[in-house]
Amino acid sequence: VTERKPVRVSIDAMGGDGAPETVLAGVELALQADPALQVILSGPESLSNPIASLSGAARSRVSTVFAESTLPADVNAARALRRGQGSSLWVALEQLQTDQADAMVSGGSTGALMALSRQMLGMLPGVERPALMGAIPTLSRPVWMLDLGANLQVDARRLLEFAQLGHVAYDVLEGRHPRIGLLNIGSEPGKGPDVIREAARLIESETTLDYQGFVEADQVFAAAVDLVVCDGFAGNILLKSAEGAVRLMFSALVENLQGSLAGWMARSRIRSLHDSLDPARHNGAPMLGVRGTVIKSHGGSCARGFARAVELAALQARRDLVGQLEHQLWASY
Amino acid sequence: VTERKPVRVSIDAMGGDGAPETVLAGVELALQADPALQVILSGPESLSNPIASLSGAARSRVSTVFAESTLPADVNAARALRRGQGSSLWVALEQLQTDQADAMVSGGSTGALMALSRQMLGMLPGVERPALMGAIPTLSRPVWMLDLGANLQVDARRLLEFAQLGHVAYDVLEGRHPRIGLLNIGSEPGKGPDVIREAARLIESETTLDYQGFVEADQVFAAAVDLVVCDGFAGNILLKSAEGAVRLMFSALVENLQGSLAGWMARSRIRSLHDSLDPARHNGAPMLGVRGTVIKSHGGSCARGFARAVELAALQARRDLVGQLEHQLWASY
Repeated sequence: VTERKPVRVSIDAMGGDGAPETVLAGVELALQADPALQVILSGPESLSNPIASLSGAARSRVSTVFAESTLPADVNAARALRRGQGSSLWVALEQLQTDQADAMVSGGSTGALMALSRQMLGMLPGVERPALMGAIPTLSRPVWMLDLGANLQVDARRLLEFAQLGHVAYDVLEGRHPRIGLLNIGSEPGKGPDVIREAARLIESETTLDYQGFVEADQVFAAAVDLVVCDGFAGNILLKSAEGAVRLMFSALVENLQGSLAGWMARSRIRSLHDSLDPARHNGAPMLGVRGTVIKSHGGSCARGFARAVELAALQARRDLVGQLEHQLWASY
Repeated sequence: VTERKPVRVSIDAMGGDGAPETVLAGVELALQADPALQVILSGPESLSNPIASLSGAARSRVSTVFAESTLPADVNAARALRRGQGSSLWVALEQLQTDQADAMVSGGSTGALMALSRQMLGMLPGVERPALMGAIPTLSRPVWMLDLGANLQVDARRLLEFAQLGHVAYDVLEGRHPRIGLLNIGSEPGKGPDVIREAARLIESETTLDYQGFVEADQVFAAAVDLVVCDGFAGNILLKSAEGAVRLMFSALVENLQGSLAGWMARSRIRSLHDSLDPARHNGAPMLGVRGTVIKSHGGSCARGFARAVELAALQARRDLVGQLEHQLWASY
């Protein structure tokens, strides 16, 4: 193992359903796994109490910054822009803006994170709005997908932009060029809405992109491609549908196997499988296009999931994803 | 058990991946389960051979009509309209059109089935295009959803129409009024694209409909509502995503439990659970809005799935869903 570069991750301690407890537990896990990680937590004064109870090695790499308020989980973008200043989200982004952190993580409102990060950090050249990228678990490897809900209605050029942003991000994170597919309701060339067919023409004509054609929702889980491009509405439906179906399946399985010897014996294996394949646990969605490493954590994430989001933030900062994106976007002008 | 009314179901024997073998096996299962069912199969002359091998009781309730061609599985609507005449799909619909059958089932191309059924049977008053409705399995009961892929882009009035068609169909099939939800990426009133928020206002103002608000994709699997309204693109993504996730989960489970005693013991339970919860097996999608009982069967359905589609066709015909829809649509003028 090569020595890791020190990295400072700023964290909104108050974002997400289980905040701040889940966030703190996740931070502790991330600090244990990464000796070169430093964490800056933003939140109320009372945060210092739980931090004092962290194990010594972890505690020395955590600092806090005071935030006078917390944005509600369902706050929308407009309201966040008007009222967000001084909130734990705002203060966490400020660390990144003032170069006191290399990356930032929040489990709070997606709309607020998107709006404030765009306003405070600015956008990369030519990119108008951030896109949210996330990982879908499969048997072989995660498939990355964007957009996951930051952009509900998009035109064909925007879908091309998602493909370009995702191509660079995948390359930086996974170390190779992705095979790219466009989410559609059929795989034949003539299928689907006009905007998707037009996007297919645009993406296909970019020779730097390895475009594989349309991909149907079920094929995403078979890792038919490495990177799936779609609008945020479709991406959100795909992801949440899979979450709902998987959750249903496991409750049914647990109920069905209850009271049987086989069930008792199989239980721990089933649970660990659930952990490895539940889309909700593949946590950490890079917000691509903003001038800074910003990661959205699932609001309902567990501590281990939050730790993953922090690890992803550290990885992106170390590999300078934002610099790479900026370089590629300038090159494409 | 009350005696069932005789019902005649016309079937495109050549539609679907496993046709005609899977279709025939499904028909045999359906005939065994329903002594008052008669089946008319359309297809090539060679069909008579496998039919001769059906068990006596089933064979006497099967007749065939000759079709000179078969439409390819990926045929689109325009081509089906130009070239479809004389095909097994066309001949099967003709039985319904000429009142020689009470319902019709096909596992072939959705686009072709939609275009030809609309042309040959006509539409109910005020309905412009058919909508495809399907069932999503949950722990308690199926949740019905429309549209599933027949209408990719829709306006708010069309979503209201889906709610109205689905309301009547649910009532007839399940015997009670459905709680209706509109698929969206958040449950708060201000969320989502304009067209969905506008549809919410329209559906809410119809006092006959029990509108419950927005429903997110994962909540569909928790049976948060009974009937989900969405455009065909989102419906297709939701359904296929769930299919893909469930398939991934079960392959992983089988692989993970292989070679272990617990796995060996749990296997049959897991398999039967898969059967009961796999969306692909909840087969049979009513095509609502056409003037006739038309059911789309999943192209990849197994024999048992095909039998379910035939049973659904028989149920709809016996309960006169089309007459009920016509009555309600006239009443709403």
